[in-house]
Amino acid sequence: MNIKAKLREIIFGYDTPAGKTFDVVLIFAIIGSLIVVMLDSVSHIHQDYHFTLSAFEWFFTIIFTIEYVARIYSSDQPLKYVFSFYGMIDLLSTIPSYLAIFIPGSETILVLRVFRLMRVFRIFKLGHYVKGSQILVDSLYENRGKIIAFLTVVLIVVIFIGSLMYIIEGPEHGFNSIPRSMYWAIVTVTTVGFGDISPQTSFGQFLASLLMLIGYSIIAVPTGIVSSGFLKAKSSSKSVESLEKAKISSCPRCQSKVKLGRDNYCRKCGEAL
Amino acid sequence: MNIKAKLREIIFGYDTPAGKTFDVVLIFAIIGSLIVVMLDSVSHIHQDYHFTLSAFEWFFTIIFTIEYVARIYSSDQPLKYVFSFYGMIDLLSTIPSYLAIFIPGSETILVLRVFRLMRVFRIFKLGHYVKGSQILVDSLYENRGKIIAFLTVVLIVVIFIGSLMYIIEGPEHGFNSIPRSMYWAIVTVTTVGFGDISPQTSFGQFLASLLMLIGYSIIAVPTGIVSSGFLKAKSSSKSVESLEKAKISSCPRCQSKVKLGRDNYCRKCGEAL
Amino acid sequence: MNIKAKLREIIFGYDTPAGKTFDVVLIFAIIGSLIVVMLDSVSHIHQDYHFTLSAFEWFFTIIFTIEYVARIYSSDQPLKYVFSFYGMIDLLSTIPSYLAIFIPGSETILVLRVFRLMRVFRIFKLGHYVKGSQILVDSLYENRGKIIAFLTVVLIVVIFIGSLMYIIEGPEHGFNSIPRSMYWAIVTVTTVGFGDISPQTSFGQFLASLLMLIGYSIIAVPTGIVSSGFLKAKSSSKSVESLEKAKISSCPRCQSKVKLGRDNYCRKCGEAL
Amino acid sequence: MNIKAKLREIIFGYDTPAGKTFDVVLIFAIIGSLIVVMLDSVSHIHQDYHFTLSAFEWFFTIIFTIEYVARIYSSDQPLKYVFSFYGMIDLLSTIPSYLAIFIPGSETILVLRVFRLMRVFRIFKLGHYVKGSQILVDSLYENRGKIIAFLTVVLIVVIFIGSLMYIIEGPEHGFNSIPRSMYWAIVTVTTVGFGDISPQTSFGQFLASLLMLIGYSIIAVPTGIVSSGFLKAKSSSKSVESLEKAKISSCPRCQSKVKLGRDNYCRKCGEAL
Repeated sequence: MNIKAKLREIIFGYDTPAGKTFDVVLIFAIIGSLIVVMLDSVSHIHQDYHFTLSAFEWFFTIIFTIEYVARIYSSDQPLKYVFSFYGMIDLLSTIPSYLAIFIPGSETILVLRVFRLMRVFRIFKLGHYVKGSQILVDSLYENRGKIIAFLTVVLIVVIFIGSLMYIIEGPEHGFNSIPRSMYWAIVTVTTVGFGDISPQTSFGQFLASLLMLIGYSIIAVPTGIVSSGFLKAKSSSKSVESLEKAKISSCPRCQSKVKLGRDNYCRKCGEAL
Repeated sequence: MNIKAKLREIIFGYDTPAGKTFDVVLIFAIIGSLIVVMLDSVSHIHQDYHFTLSAFEWFFTIIFTIEYVARIYSSDQPLKYVFSFYGMIDLLSTIPSYLAIFIPGSETILVLRVFRLMRVFRIFKLGHYVKGSQILVDSLYENRGKIIAFLTVVLIVVIFIGSLMYIIEGPEHGFNSIPRSMYWAIVTVTTVGFGDISPQTSFGQFLASLLMLIGYSIIAVPTGIVSSGFLKAKSSSKSVESLEKAKISSCPRCQSKVKLGRDNYCRKCGEAL
Repeated sequence: MNIKAKLREIIFGYDTPAGKTFDVVLIFAIIGSLIVVMLDSVSHIHQDYHFTLSAFEWFFTIIFTIEYVARIYSSDQPLKYVFSFYGMIDLLSTIPSYLAIFIPGSETILVLRVFRLMRVFRIFKLGHYVKGSQILVDSLYENRGKIIAFLTVVLIVVIFIGSLMYIIEGPEHGFNSIPRSMYWAIVTVTTVGFGDISPQTSFGQFLASLLMLIGYSIIAVPTGIVSSGFLKAKSSSKSVESLEKAKISSCPRCQSKVKLGRDNYCRKCGEAL
Repeated sequence: MNIKAKLREIIFGYDTPAGKTFDVVLIFAIIGSLIVVMLDSVSHIHQDYHFTLSAFEWFFTIIFTIEYVARIYSSDQPLKYVFSFYGMIDLLSTIPSYLAIFIPGSETILVLRVFRLMRVFRIFKLGHYVKGSQILVDSLYENRGKIIAFLTVVLIVVIFIGSLMYIIEGPEHGFNSIPRSMYWAIVTVTTVGFGDISPQTSFGQFLASLLMLIGYSIIAVPTGIVSSGFLKAKSSSKSVESLEKAKISSCPRCQSKVKLGRDNYCRKCGEAL
């Protein structure tokens, strides 16, 4: 086994000890670098511990850069990887730190490092949480018709009440445009209720009360969808478990999901496994 | 086939290619015109892009006017259409723009154009979302007894706590009338919590805590109703599916819903299909 | 049939035409008088329409007084009625108006008239909404163990987080006593979130975030209790329906619920029916 | 039966009359002492009733001290008890009052007395509420996979939207660091909505609307988990009931839970029962 194949096993494998170790190290590196980005945004920590945070930041950046180069090197189709979704994310995880040397003080660019978080998805989507989240996703997907109908109703209610409140309350009470009134209607119907804008007139408060009761009542609808979806999912969960037993990995050429024990060729690019 | 029959097929048909195209164009026109109305309400956009928005507005108004005339012309009973619910909505979609020429500056009238949104219902009610929303509506209708009982309990709680808070907190803490205290009680029991009015006295805060815990507990009731309704609906959903397969259209004379493959005559007006 | 028996039929009967008419009139009188009390609390309406509101108020007060006297007269055990729960409520519905003549300006006393609302319960508890609300009440009663366990957990969380926030944030950020901190914790865990008190320190905000996520998660528990209660109630709802068919009335002597077709003697006082 | 055995029966028994009385007295003492701690934190009560509160405080402290000594004395392995979880809690319930004599004015130490609340758990965990809460706990434990998946999704959404809001709104609108933006995102996604920080820009309000709709939709997920868990629990609740019938007590040596009718020896330490 040459270096390239070895690297491939480490990076793309999920069942080998080396692959697992790699994933765990990567998750810790991602979480660690996120904590650094977060702490760096707190102004008094930024001032007091600037040097320490910078050191950690460069440590993680170099790790991610090495990983990025290793991924390109070990991939069969480097260009396809570079322009894939995760390839872009991997690049975005390293570039901001380098850019910030040439364009110092550019805080916005550094915040882009938060996209490193998306790298966690690649590991998680084939990881230990597949079963639980798969049921969630399946349940949502099967009920997409009801969810779209529900969101359409919510949107129509929001547009109507938003427009009415714009007429009733007007700019002098904070409802200074229909989009802003719609923002207020969403704040209200979802029962968030910031209170940055709130109705002052009697009729506005009456309409707001109606909107709240609507929100309070229709909050039940998504719950009903998901609850009955879960109960349905229970009976068909055996097929998910059998899927679990198959060894899951990702295709070394196109990065798409493959089942090692079952698939002989990648479904997407035809690569022999 | 004469022009009238052709027009009828385009406007009232939902399964012919021409009818489908007409519906899609109409949906885009409605959404487009709504976006124009919304943007026009933002003061700085209104000032900077007044001419562009006006042009779009007149474009949509003329489309809706032509459609309105075509509906009257192709209908067998024009007067019945004009005084029907959707006939009124269609008229309301065009009139405000014409009125605004004679009564310039009347912002309130222009906002009425938002009622164009209701035209979407006509298309949607026979469209792709029938299945999902039908189950929602059926579930709510079947449980109307429980929902009324629930809303009655909520209202009684709101009247009581509202009146008590009016006595306890009084006008000096913002509770300056029973209706306003009831508004506060609705804001609280629905867990919205704007914070524009909030109790200041110890006893008021204790009573508010009780109200919140009540709200938090009874939030479960509508959910329970809808959830169990959904589970019941699952078993009877086959009949909905078979209904789906029948070609659905609307009667050219009285606009009521007809199933093309099954019904030979309109259920409402007896028109041969 | 003498006057006393006739009055008894009107007042205590729920199935005779006269009894039904009496109930409907009473409900409208109660709602009407409540609206008068509410409008009277709005200061500008109180000033402008004082005479009209007073007239209506006295009209309703006299109706309720006549009804109260009729109830005493037609009852077999007048004293038992006078000191029963509903007897006290009926008295409380009339007295404040008379008292306000001697102690003018006493707003608090007049607000007591809102207790008239409780008279609605007497009519409702045997009325059309029995079925729906009975299932709600049964569901809650059967699951009282879980609900008490749930509320105990909520209370313990509230006491702990409230005390911790009192130490962390302190009086300078509005958390000026443990009871007030507990009020804030209830506002937060029930997802109401007034914002009249809110954490300012980093650690306080972290703890508040935890509390919110706890609240967000355990909001599911009452829902689960009620949902599964409803599904169970479905199968046993036949017995409720058969109960519905029996003629329900109230005992003329002790006012307790009796089933006319089934019971021969009142379960409480042994009165022959 | 000597004093030690008698004491053991009173303190560790849950089914004997003496043991039950002891538990009830203890619960009242804990609740009473908590009320004293709470009232003492209200500044005007602290000033006016300082002497009375102090007297009650010392009364409860002495009771808890005697109980602590009795527990050590009657236990077979005093050291094990002292260093056990509940041993530490019992110590923490008495020490702050003694410490406050030497370090007067130390309010923070006195607030530690609130940990007395945790003593309630020892009594409750083997008490009447076992059945209800056991189903809750089991339901949560069985669905831990889904709950972790759910909380992970919530956390990822919070990190992303928090970081984006930090870039969009910035410190001038209160979003002055990523952690604080994340605090705001949690306040919003859980539909609490304090309103202490709220978006001011159009794009910020649009993003906040999205976050609220996400929160409103995924609020259904934990509900679905718990609801379907409850329904599943119903069928297996018989085993819980049979467990209920067995006399439950706690081992006098190691304090772990034992079933008196069934177990002959403690499962943990092998002590003969």
